[in-house]
Amino acid sequence: MKTFNEITEILSLEIEKLNWQKSPEGLYKPISYVLSHGGKRIRPTLTLMACNLFTDNLLPAIPAALGLEIFHNFTLLHDDIMDKAELRRGMPTVHQKWDDNTAILSGDVMQIVAYQLISETPEKQLKHVLDLFSGTAIEICEGQQYDVDFEHRNNVEADEYLEMIRLKTAVLLGCALKTGALIGGSDFEDAQLLYDFGLNIGLAFQLKDDLLDVYGNESIFGKKIGGDILSNKKTYLLIQSLNRAVGADRMELAALLNISDENLAEEKIKGVTAIYNRLGVNKICEDKMNEFYCKAIAKLEKVGVQDNKKQELRKLAEKLMVRNE
Amino acid sequence: MKTFNEITEILSLEIEKLNWQKSPEGLYKPISYVLSHGGKRIRPTLTLMACNLFTDNLLPAIPAALGLEIFHNFTLLHDDIMDKAELRRGMPTVHQKWDDNTAILSGDVMQIVAYQLISETPEKQLKHVLDLFSGTAIEICEGQQYDVDFEHRNNVEADEYLEMIRLKTAVLLGCALKTGALIGGSDFEDAQLLYDFGLNIGLAFQLKDDLLDVYGNESIFGKKIGGDILSNKKTYLLIQSLNRAVGADRMELAALLNISDENLAEEKIKGVTAIYNRLGVNKICEDKMNEFYCKAIAKLEKVGVQDNKKQELRKLAEKLMVRNE
Repeated sequence: MKTFNEITEILSLEIEKLNWQKSPEGLYKPISYVLSHGGKRIRPTLTLMACNLFTDNLLPAIPAALGLEIFHNFTLLHDDIMDKAELRRGMPTVHQKWDDNTAILSGDVMQIVAYQLISETPEKQLKHVLDLFSGTAIEICEGQQYDVDFEHRNNVEADEYLEMIRLKTAVLLGCALKTGALIGGSDFEDAQLLYDFGLNIGLAFQLKDDLLDVYGNESIFGKKIGGDILSNKKTYLLIQSLNRAVGADRMELAALLNISDENLAEEKIKGVTAIYNRLGVNKICEDKMNEFYCKAIAKLEKVGVQDNKKQELRKLAEKLMVRNE
Repeated sequence: MKTFNEITEILSLEIEKLNWQKSPEGLYKPISYVLSHGGKRIRPTLTLMACNLFTDNLLPAIPAALGLEIFHNFTLLHDDIMDKAELRRGMPTVHQKWDDNTAILSGDVMQIVAYQLISETPEKQLKHVLDLFSGTAIEICEGQQYDVDFEHRNNVEADEYLEMIRLKTAVLLGCALKTGALIGGSDFEDAQLLYDFGLNIGLAFQLKDDLLDVYGNESIFGKKIGGDILSNKKTYLLIQSLNRAVGADRMELAALLNISDENLAEEKIKGVTAIYNRLGVNKICEDKMNEFYCKAIAKLEKVGVQDNKKQELRKLAEKLMVRNE
């Protein structure tokens, strides 16, 4: 069994090996730029760890793992255009450093390269892995569209939000695990259990993200606290608050959401946080997060391999949950 | 053997069968919109015709044919954002009717759907067809990038231009034919001959397009004559002129390229066309086009099937060449 560190080491080397020194430069330099900024490489790590539950030979799973990482970075690239984001992992986004057209076209190529890599999956599992990937990729686009739609709606229900983050974030973690399991020789039942493990970890992970934006430690979280509040982003916390606030809280929340003056940023963050605390939506969010986390672990426990083999996945799941506090 | 009309009839029905009545609407409506505006369906027609050279059973080639058509429409969708095009097939482009973000995301889904359809290729040919498609898709993005790069360059060589249109336009015709041939059970030699046939037809087709923009009949061509001239588009005609014009012609051409006043549009078109005629670049372009066309036909003739089976492909190739005059 390989440890988390051994697997991320393998992945770093493999990602470095990908050749982007090709013409036309305008197409490939942005890809090299995006992939050189690291990131946690969670998805390909999950693929190799899942594979490792069933075999010591991780080689056949490496192309698919890389494909999933490149696909994930492609979605970030196109999402950043749509969100007009200026920074990603502390560096200027591609559409900022180059322009929108470059970000569109380099992203398109990344999606194709992802498929090229995934197509290197051994022929026996190729069709399954491909169909799983395509289905997941479409779900991710659907999730992004719901996310965009929610910006213009004031009546988003908590369940709709959970469905959105399932599509936008969680399914890719499930897909990464199931892909590794299938290539490692798992049967369909275990592969599905690992998918469900990833899906629930993904849901918990996103709720954690919503919480960290408000309650995190800025220096560890790596992003400015309150960013979601300032942009009126419909997180689980805000949606639960909009659906629960009555009377004075409701009026105050509406007034705070109307603030767009940058000089009042601190006041807005403090005010909204105070309402979250009064309504107890932080507790509701934590409970929901823990529910998904426990469900995830229960799925992992059912996977039909020796218990000690699951240790690295358990540790990774825990790490994703306790981060940045 | 199916005729051209029978094949386009099959394709129209199959394209209508695709279901875009799905949520979220904001993602799928633009796709349905794009695909409902017709177009010549040249690529999937080539796939089915190539398949038909080797078998009467076209069913296994239909998903890949549809995938190629959807991929082609995806590239038009993203190209239209990059070119800020307002109309496509006489209708508002997606980014005009909706917005850029919609056009980006709906395009991304179309690319995935193209892969989903292509993945339905029978398992025996799946890997070959996938690799051919991915390689082609990347070439098309490279071609688009060169096209963008050329806008900012004043020293584009004719050979660079031909390489750009090979990538941007011609390879997909080759890929469409080879895909159909492989699925129809062709050997690799015949499949490659059909690829080369498509590639050369594609090159001739694009040069024809350049000529029609200047010398076409507006009511038949369906676009305004002189559009390329007004936008200083580096067509084969302009590149050859820039590389050949000397003395007074050179000065006049430079002056004409500087005109951006809409009131002088007619003058600009007339002036540039007169220079093309004086330099004889229309003749040079026609000769080059015919060279590719003859090469294409020579490749088709070598394909190892009964001569009469090739008649529909010969007719289609001719149709693409004599159109709109």
